[in-house]
Amino acid sequence: MNLKAEIALAHRLADAARAEILPLFRTQVDSEAKDDATPVTIADRNAEEAMRRILKAEAGQDGVHGEEFGIEPGKSGRQWVLDPIDGTTAFLAGRATFGTLIALLVEGFPVLGMIDQPVLGERWLGVMGQATTLNGQVVSTRRCRELASATLATTGPHYFDEHQGHTFMTLASRTDHKRMVMGGDCYNYACLASGHIDIVCEAGLKIHDYAALVPVVEGAGGVMSDWRGEPLHAGSDGQVLALGDPARLEDVLEAMAAAH
Amino acid sequence: MNLKAEIALAHRLADAARAEILPLFRTQVDSEAKDDATPVTIADRNAEEAMRRILKAEAGQDGVHGEEFGIEPGKSGRQWVLDPIDGTTAFLAGRATFGTLIALLVEGFPVLGMIDQPVLGERWLGVMGQATTLNGQVVSTRRCRELASATLATTGPHYFDEHQGHTFMTLASRTDHKRMVMGGDCYNYACLASGHIDIVCEAGLKIHDYAALVPVVEGAGGVMSDWRGEPLHAGSDGQVLALGDPARLEDVLEAMAAAH
Repeated sequence: MNLKAEIALAHRLADAARAEILPLFRTQVDSEAKDDATPVTIADRNAEEAMRRILKAEAGQDGVHGEEFGIEPGKSGRQWVLDPIDGTTAFLAGRATFGTLIALLVEGFPVLGMIDQPVLGERWLGVMGQATTLNGQVVSTRRCRELASATLATTGPHYFDEHQGHTFMTLASRTDHKRMVMGGDCYNYACLASGHIDIVCEAGLKIHDYAALVPVVEGAGGVMSDWRGEPLHAGSDGQVLALGDPARLEDVLEAMAAAH
Repeated sequence: MNLKAEIALAHRLADAARAEILPLFRTQVDSEAKDDATPVTIADRNAEEAMRRILKAEAGQDGVHGEEFGIEPGKSGRQWVLDPIDGTTAFLAGRATFGTLIALLVEGFPVLGMIDQPVLGERWLGVMGQATTLNGQVVSTRRCRELASATLATTGPHYFDEHQGHTFMTLASRTDHKRMVMGGDCYNYACLASGHIDIVCEAGLKIHDYAALVPVVEGAGGVMSDWRGEPLHAGSDGQVLALGDPARLEDVLEAMAAAH
């Protein structure tokens, strides 16, 4: 699959989102409760609108699925999935750990993914069959020889229901508990792709939260799946695992299964 | 209290720490388990040694208490308290949310505090009786009209014991739960000083974890205390509260007391 034009387009989308987001970081913007009561900033909406304008002009046949403005059907079997600010709570808290997520799905499976951190000027790009890059430099996940030495990350235990929380804690107890990190949203997956985190375990994610992560993580040598080890696609249940070292997937699934 | 010379010295300490820390960020450094099993990086030790060398040469009468190399008694009634990398797990995970903490204590009470984030080049400075600054610009906390709209932060629930965890969760349930952020270490207090977070609640902190935070938070208009509302000093029990709006302290203490 030659995605040269699509990669260039994704860069233009991320540039446009950055231009909307950066001037509003750490300013006092009004936020409003959505139906699901997560905070939404003006930056979030402006960035998605900017990306949608570009897609309409340059890829009018493709569908668009954005976090803020929903689904625009396409005719090409391809769909751009956009999350202008993944980690809105981090954004509002003044932390440069949020990210703009851009993914291209073909027949429901992500083939291109981008994680862009505007404040730090960091952009991870993953493309099916290619090595993942951070600002053009190839990055790779690290080996993890045993679960007991793994660094585990999750955005917060308050995003799990009780059953999921118990499963997570069982997994956590078998990893290097002292190195576990909370918070981070999409940025955890980027740091995993760059070899600094071994496992990310989350639940309740939507397609716009995880589609872009898959090519980034897998192009860096890692693996992503749902909590049963199945590949992620548009119909997944939002329970997401990422591992830097695919050799540990069986151990992780076993640990999670042991919870119940 | 005129602390002009001490402020200049603190800047030189932070500069020296940055020079040791930055080249090692996101490199593979060996880490080793200490007695309390938190990760320690080479950067941590090198940065503290660099700061100690400067203090020995320029403030030989003052005591030094560093996270890595312990207590060096002084003769002046003044003590420099150093935490070269607060948030070593964040550092190891590749996140720019760790910080170098530098405090000056006089008779056990912090009168000068600095939070330095090397990757982002951000430096918060707090001095008793002066307005807190971020890179030289005055910052201030924000008002918080009611507990129910407060953004609460903590580094992670795994740092609480069961009793503390229950207290925290009771407080959390009375804040804006949807905006709660996990992770962050010292950076949460810096973001609170800049008006992006309303409450930070933690336990198990050592003097080197919280001494520098007090002048930063209080010079920005906030308040810090232990979980009983008492001022923090060298003998505090490590249960720490920070509020951007001191008018909410009573509500917070009441919520925490209601837990038991």
